Amino acid sequence: MEKNLWKHIETVRTQSPLVHNITNFVVMNNTANALLAVGASPIMAHAHPEVQDMVSICQALVINIGTLNDYWVRSMLLAAEKANQLGKPWVLDPVGAGATNYRNHTLSALLSYKPTVIRGNASEILALAKANTTPTKGVDSTAESSEAIEAAKLIAEKYDTLVCISGKTDIIVGKGAIISLDNGDALMTKVTGLGCSATAVIGAFIAAIDNKLEALTAATALFSICGQLAAKQSAGPGSLQVNLLDKLHNISEEEFWQTLKIA
Amino acid sequence: MEKNLWKHIETVRTQSPLVHNITNFVVMNNTANALLAVGASPIMAHAHPEVQDMVSICQALVINIGTLNDYWVRSMLLAAEKANQLGKPWVLDPVGAGATNYRNHTLSALLSYKPTVIRGNASEILALAKANTTPTKGVDSTAESSEAIEAAKLIAEKYDTLVCISGKTDIIVGKGAIISLDNGDALMTKVTGLGCSATAVIGAFIAAIDNKLEALTAATALFSICGQLAAKQSAGPGSLQVNLLDKLHNISEEEFWQTLKIA
Amino acid sequence: MEKNLWKHIETVRTQSPLVHNITNFVVMNNTANALLAVGASPIMAHAHPEVQDMVSICQALVINIGTLNDYWVRSMLLAAEKANQLGKPWVLDPVGAGATNYRNHTLSALLSYKPTVIRGNASEILALAKANTTPTKGVDSTAESSEAIEAAKLIAEKYDTLVCISGKTDIIVGKGAIISLDNGDALMTKVTGLGCSATAVIGAFIAAIDNKLEALTAATALFSICGQLAAKQSAGPGSLQVNLLDKLHNISEEEFWQTLKIA
Repeated sequence: MEKNLWKHIETVRTQSPLVHNITNFVVMNNTANALLAVGASPIMAHAHPEVQDMVSICQALVINIGTLNDYWVRSMLLAAEKANQLGKPWVLDPVGAGATNYRNHTLSALLSYKPTVIRGNASEILALAKANTTPTKGVDSTAESSEAIEAAKLIAEKYDTLVCISGKTDIIVGKGAIISLDNGDALMTKVTGLGCSATAVIGAFIAAIDNKLEALTAATALFSICGQLAAKQSAGPGSLQVNLLDKLHNISEEEFWQTLKIA
Repeated sequence: MEKNLWKHIETVRTQSPLVHNITNFVVMNNTANALLAVGASPIMAHAHPEVQDMVSICQALVINIGTLNDYWVRSMLLAAEKANQLGKPWVLDPVGAGATNYRNHTLSALLSYKPTVIRGNASEILALAKANTTPTKGVDSTAESSEAIEAAKLIAEKYDTLVCISGKTDIIVGKGAIISLDNGDALMTKVTGLGCSATAVIGAFIAAIDNKLEALTAATALFSICGQLAAKQSAGPGSLQVNLLDKLHNISEEEFWQTLKIA
Repeated sequence: MEKNLWKHIETVRTQSPLVHNITNFVVMNNTANALLAVGASPIMAHAHPEVQDMVSICQALVINIGTLNDYWVRSMLLAAEKANQLGKPWVLDPVGAGATNYRNHTLSALLSYKPTVIRGNASEILALAKANTTPTKGVDSTAESSEAIEAAKLIAEKYDTLVCISGKTDIIVGKGAIISLDNGDALMTKVTGLGCSATAVIGAFIAAIDNKLEALTAATALFSICGQLAAKQSAGPGSLQVNLLDKLHNISEEEFWQTLKIA
């Protein structure tokens, strides 16, 4: 699969899939920009009378519960139901799973519509598996990615989905496969919503590529590699956010292969 | 009119008009920053109990339906009604017109309050004229600006308004006039919400300048020229967003005249 | 107190307090990034079923009424009530106070929960004190900081709170103390929401530091100094926003002391 990763990046650029996002207020701008930078076409819409129409015209759906409320939860459920019905791929970002009962209940309802991919930090994946013995610290993780592997296996099995545990090492779990990606940079944790942007980019890749495990791996590798390359040029988190969007847009095949650390 | 364009840019800087925006979640930050960069003073407010009060204290209103829902549609209608009542100029950005029935119905209701200017891409303008034979691709245009000229003429006539069709060439249509502006850069389509920011800047210009056709032309020229100049300095869409705001703030008269391509 | 200011900046970096923000749509991204840049951990949540749970797990609360509506006002009241009940510090940013009756009523209700700090521009502080004889121009101030000192004294007394009047000179008023900070740069007024970000940073400092007057002073000094240093390197407001986040992250003790102007 490794040799296909760059090809998938080019496929997204060529196909420019339309990706429907129901995400949180904090990251909407960055998320849309990350999608544009990798060559996809973002749309954001959540009104109940139109949300299922939008799912119908898009190639994938991204749901992120960061700043949920009752109206938005209903939008998410309508959209996930439609994606499930139409067999369209969708990705779930369980922001703050385990922090409140309200988030846990919302996530249970969403999981019934079988997301194609779930991407979260270790604390969130542990919480999703109800195996969370690590106290959640708001939306940031207090656990290491490796601790959450068993939880991810459980979730992958139970919901027939792929799981990406983000962290210092990103770990992808599903269908018997475990893939580790050792790219990224610590400065990325000082920019809000980079995880949310990574989730949206995964949406673009599962929209355009049939092999969902390869799509998830290519998206995750691309995002972490671009973050790592961008961090090298950055004086702090402000410039990292800017340089990351530039790099998602202009990364070369050579840069990709020279930076990739996969196992 | 051409010779007045720079004077109008200076008028906005001097008068610093207060511009009320009811816009989408994705672009609120950029939109406010674009308004500040050209010298205007942005306000964003949508609560039903105050939205008409805000229209009363502002010099112009900007309505953008990007992430509408029932509450926000009601806010937009209340604001447009008040602007119409008080004779205050307002600009409409029909994001995603034609994509869903919900958007089309909302736009019909808004149009009854006679916007001073409508700014959209070719697909949106075609959809507004119900002459849309081009399938809409989410919020991005699949049609060329030139195809939408007849549609724009119809709308300009029917609603007694000015229309700006954004695209590779920006085309301004109204009261027998057709103006083409050939500035901008392809990289601008890789930054989310630049069209929405252009619409907000138009709001600032129709707030401060009596001749609305000249105001619209000056705003559109300024935005596209700054985008073009900023793109030259930018490694990708991240830096373009930053450089565009800088250029809107510090563009010189010489740069403006040397870059302008108007016909 | 002056000699403690840098120590407090380091305390925030070390403790990384969790700060709950209920703020406006325009600035959510920047606000979260400003908190991360100073070393804090932001969370944004407003759903009625979870908002009090979130207050419980956080070390401080930030309330900013920029883009309020009925749902959000209720969120703010629930959160402020809980913070008050649990004795958690919280900061109020009364954006647009005096612009509409709706804002004034909302602020009266919030003030009953006794914010630890109120930070606003001179017009807003005057409006809060119902001593506002200066017409409000939207969300920007038309009054000088110094005119609002008497108003700030009244508020500080009446609500047993600290007040920070932001402006060319930032003035901190409370418990008999008046502190002036003469840092910052005029270009900062051309970036949207820097005041809102300053308020959030105050939230991080009152979360981590017991002496609230020193916490407020350290936060305000840090933000204005970083803005001043960032402005020197910036071609316009776009790059200022980026450079400010970088500087909040990487400012050195030497830069801090060399730039500080306190009286």
